[in-house]
Amino acid sequence: MNTFGEKIRLSIFGESHGPAVGVVIDGLPPGFAPDMEAVAREMARRAPGKSELETSRAEADAVELVSGLFEGKTTGAPLCGVIRNTDARSGDYQRNLPRPGHADAAAHVKYKGFADYRGGGHFSGRLTAPLVFAGALAKQLLPGVTITAQPLSIGGKAPKDETILRAKADGDSVGGVIACAVNGLPAGLGEPFFGSVESRLSALLFSIPAVKAVEFDDGFARSGMRGSLSNRTPFGILGGITTGETLRFCVAVKPTPSIALEQDTIDLATGKAAKITVTGRHDPCIVPRAVPVVEAAAAIGLLDLWLAGGFSL
Amino acid sequence: MNTFGEKIRLSIFGESHGPAVGVVIDGLPPGFAPDMEAVAREMARRAPGKSELETSRAEADAVELVSGLFEGKTTGAPLCGVIRNTDARSGDYQRNLPRPGHADAAAHVKYKGFADYRGGGHFSGRLTAPLVFAGALAKQLLPGVTITAQPLSIGGKAPKDETILRAKADGDSVGGVIACAVNGLPAGLGEPFFGSVESRLSALLFSIPAVKAVEFDDGFARSGMRGSLSNRTPFGILGGITTGETLRFCVAVKPTPSIALEQDTIDLATGKAAKITVTGRHDPCIVPRAVPVVEAAAAIGLLDLWLAGGFSL
Amino acid sequence: MNTFGEKIRLSIFGESHGPAVGVVIDGLPPGFAPDMEAVAREMARRAPGKSELETSRAEADAVELVSGLFEGKTTGAPLCGVIRNTDARSGDYQRNLPRPGHADAAAHVKYKGFADYRGGGHFSGRLTAPLVFAGALAKQLLPGVTITAQPLSIGGKAPKDETILRAKADGDSVGGVIACAVNGLPAGLGEPFFGSVESRLSALLFSIPAVKAVEFDDGFARSGMRGSLSNRTPFGILGGITTGETLRFCVAVKPTPSIALEQDTIDLATGKAAKITVTGRHDPCIVPRAVPVVEAAAAIGLLDLWLAGGFSL
Amino acid sequence: MNTFGEKIRLSIFGESHGPAVGVVIDGLPPGFAPDMEAVAREMARRAPGKSELETSRAEADAVELVSGLFEGKTTGAPLCGVIRNTDARSGDYQRNLPRPGHADAAAHVKYKGFADYRGGGHFSGRLTAPLVFAGALAKQLLPGVTITAQPLSIGGKAPKDETILRAKADGDSVGGVIACAVNGLPAGLGEPFFGSVESRLSALLFSIPAVKAVEFDDGFARSGMRGSLSNRTPFGILGGITTGETLRFCVAVKPTPSIALEQDTIDLATGKAAKITVTGRHDPCIVPRAVPVVEAAAAIGLLDLWLAGGFSL
Repeated sequence: MNTFGEKIRLSIFGESHGPAVGVVIDGLPPGFAPDMEAVAREMARRAPGKSELETSRAEADAVELVSGLFEGKTTGAPLCGVIRNTDARSGDYQRNLPRPGHADAAAHVKYKGFADYRGGGHFSGRLTAPLVFAGALAKQLLPGVTITAQPLSIGGKAPKDETILRAKADGDSVGGVIACAVNGLPAGLGEPFFGSVESRLSALLFSIPAVKAVEFDDGFARSGMRGSLSNRTPFGILGGITTGETLRFCVAVKPTPSIALEQDTIDLATGKAAKITVTGRHDPCIVPRAVPVVEAAAAIGLLDLWLAGGFSL
Repeated sequence: MNTFGEKIRLSIFGESHGPAVGVVIDGLPPGFAPDMEAVAREMARRAPGKSELETSRAEADAVELVSGLFEGKTTGAPLCGVIRNTDARSGDYQRNLPRPGHADAAAHVKYKGFADYRGGGHFSGRLTAPLVFAGALAKQLLPGVTITAQPLSIGGKAPKDETILRAKADGDSVGGVIACAVNGLPAGLGEPFFGSVESRLSALLFSIPAVKAVEFDDGFARSGMRGSLSNRTPFGILGGITTGETLRFCVAVKPTPSIALEQDTIDLATGKAAKITVTGRHDPCIVPRAVPVVEAAAAIGLLDLWLAGGFSL
Repeated sequence: MNTFGEKIRLSIFGESHGPAVGVVIDGLPPGFAPDMEAVAREMARRAPGKSELETSRAEADAVELVSGLFEGKTTGAPLCGVIRNTDARSGDYQRNLPRPGHADAAAHVKYKGFADYRGGGHFSGRLTAPLVFAGALAKQLLPGVTITAQPLSIGGKAPKDETILRAKADGDSVGGVIACAVNGLPAGLGEPFFGSVESRLSALLFSIPAVKAVEFDDGFARSGMRGSLSNRTPFGILGGITTGETLRFCVAVKPTPSIALEQDTIDLATGKAAKITVTGRHDPCIVPRAVPVVEAAAAIGLLDLWLAGGFSL
Repeated sequence: MNTFGEKIRLSIFGESHGPAVGVVIDGLPPGFAPDMEAVAREMARRAPGKSELETSRAEADAVELVSGLFEGKTTGAPLCGVIRNTDARSGDYQRNLPRPGHADAAAHVKYKGFADYRGGGHFSGRLTAPLVFAGALAKQLLPGVTITAQPLSIGGKAPKDETILRAKADGDSVGGVIACAVNGLPAGLGEPFFGSVESRLSALLFSIPAVKAVEFDDGFARSGMRGSLSNRTPFGILGGITTGETLRFCVAVKPTPSIALEQDTIDLATGKAAKITVTGRHDPCIVPRAVPVVEAAAAIGLLDLWLAGGFSL
């Protein structure tokens, strides 16, 4: 299901090569005047085409607000934002040749051959545009909270553009790790067990295409410590509940599966082995563009937990 | 909230030192005859007191079924299992001295001083007993699926009892990493975005006390690969949907925060620095006992996804 | 699913002739000291066997609290209440003869023959005992709110014991209408559309076995008014939201389907027409015992809306 | 919250005088080719301006599909339909004078003065346009099911246009009762208690503005019967579950609160008594236009129950 949240409820929709992508956001408090310039800046951080490190697909990613705003302020009714697709080139995709590392083959099975295969359809990273939009609003609403993500590694090394450009030159791609720190949270957000902060945030973070791991409070490093050291190393979350300390987490991002090199695949029509060369325009590394998406997911999840916990805005 | 699931809905309850822990499981198909001996074996894997590697608290962990079963078979109505606490020693805990690395202080804030502090109350690892019970049923129901977890590392090294015993001898504790492999899943479980297999399973896995990181498909290692290699390395999940390949994931488990060494804390009554020596009976490493819990969480989540996806049992 | 609520989440379980019925209540605020004598009084209002107007099944309906309470106060963790069945006579029921007007035949289809048929199993009115328990807590928590229900009609006439006794003497039964008034609600509870106060309360009220109609604000009478009169007649709810005026609603209760007269049925084993004489002990009219159940359902729903709306207790 | 459903999830959005109203529908099966002419016919049944019995606001109610459809068939991804508002006259509404019988005053409190007051904003009956759209799809999907509603009474009498026209001539309005019959349902839809067919359908039916009562299986008449007669009178639902018999229900619709006569109100700015004459264009009776809305709500709820119950389409 494409719905998330308890107090802030998101319903996202759209496909990479359909008319639009968008989101309905329910539960925003009334009387909030979104700073649409700040929203646009967040959208621009995620938008493609800013440099040779990114896909050359050019999308303005302007958000049309079709409901929920009156005289520049939220009304308390659901806010629907629609982002038109304007620069799709559907001819780049082939119906029967699933791209390795993409959802194409699984989606073909799940949706019985009816999924929109063009650019991954609804599975596209383009669906993160409405997430960033929602996150931009959430960031503005969370009082005194700062959420800052940045690449921790790219291609297994300290982040450098050079690593991306070399992969691109080879017709290949790289992934990386993004670290995020959240300051200004009160103690007491979250619930034990299924409503833990880790459970809620990870559910959102794993919604971001290409995210394959989520680590809180340096979990892997901590698993190698003794308890006496771990207990002295600050936790942002204990028992599923924020402690009031800085909340830190990392996500692992797989390398972009769309690469220029010829790859092996299976022809869905014949069931036979085939070769595919993914054309289209793709990011040699999505890590830089995923940074604002990670921040957005965190902001949405934390705003939901904030309101669910009865904290005031 | 202590409720999880779309088709299989769990509501867990209980405290470490209250009368009982338990779970209501709704959505089990009618006509299923649980193998209660197999259930008991799973409970025994998690139960404490089996060796010097574990806490000496002795709990039989017998599950009383108070509803949902008739003539040995599920009826389709909610099944409630109650597990009595029989060997609690509440005198071991001090109301005003939160234990470092535990939820005590955060719970004190969240529940305004009314949380049951004895043994962590509702935050206790003892709540994993009903999870293992529910997971044991889920395992029996999933046709042709095998879920196998094991320690991947303990104390940052290849798993050895000796590492645990040495920490214990030092009045300290160690954590570790658990790896799990799921075989026999069909392609097509899960949904894109918020209903992704990763989102659903991670929400459950992070419900397990002490789990601080969840990695699917070797996510961190994969983040350092090039796309051409990553695409040739099998994925259990793509686009949030199972591929039909083996699903692999790891969880990082923090070291047991209850250690015998004297530690610094804050007296909640006075707000002043204080010393605490955690007495009670504790596991020097919970990794071995967490292994069946990880399997249980996976089984519950996968059964829910299985039924939500319309797959037959 | 047997789960209700957004902030106050109920999971009910149990069968009429199984070991117990009960409920897990999640979301109760911490620090609440339930008045268990007041709870017992509410339980007694619903309990059977108080007079010849009611079934002679004698159940103490004592609630064992197995979690969520510490030193007499709620902890913020889920509270589980278990009510043992002590006076069931299962011999009164026949597996293959569904009782007319009961869920027996539909449950047989839905649960593929595995439903517990004794006394209606999970469909029994006995499941309203945990509802009354939960409602008794909710009543104590709602500040300044009074919820008062009473029979409006029995057997189509002004309520009189005589009507019930005459039906009983004939081996028959009667139904009735219950009216409920809620005073002390603030304006602003509820949400437009799917979260309307009517939607939320009716979902609970229709959970009560035998309730077949729910009317708010004299809806049927009002449907015959002109707008000019209707607008001057107070509404407790407008646009799905409480107005601050008294909230009034009625529910229609069907006559007890268990009657002593011989009736036609279908033998589920043979598919052939058959005769059934329902033995067992039954209420000739459940309206009096349903009155506290209606109040309880209203209290639960309103407490959930109260907390969801951010109102303080 | 503006979200409904377990397997078919609706998120509605929009305001009467904003840019648009619409709905995101998640959970539609892939490969369904909607008959858009049949959809348009349903939209036309609800659309205003067809005769002097209705408001003269003229809206084409064309649905733009911005996602979820590919080559004329559903893809399995969420379908978003947007219906633009084209004939709003916002000058007809006054910010500080809440209209009697409308949500205006309650919404003013709930949304702290920020609700879009023009034409009732998000509370407007105009939001039933996306419901009818969703219902039109649901009707096409439910195999072998017919859902037929019609006015049972208008202004307290057998339905006649004359009653409406006389009220209109007097600057007044009338309400009525709508009866609906559903044929072709299998036995076994629904769940006991909170998931009962009555609970699920009533939650939707009470989402329709102006609906104030919902009665299943002639509940009020049945409440006056003896059990022996009631048991012989067919039930569409028993124990919350469909029986396989025709499912019948009625809803009571209050008279249109917007009337031409001068009425008393309270000025929200001054808190003083004031007079209001509601101008704008309004239906003297919304019952005829509500008939397709009732059918739509039933279709949506039944499709959700159908899929949740594992029945095939």
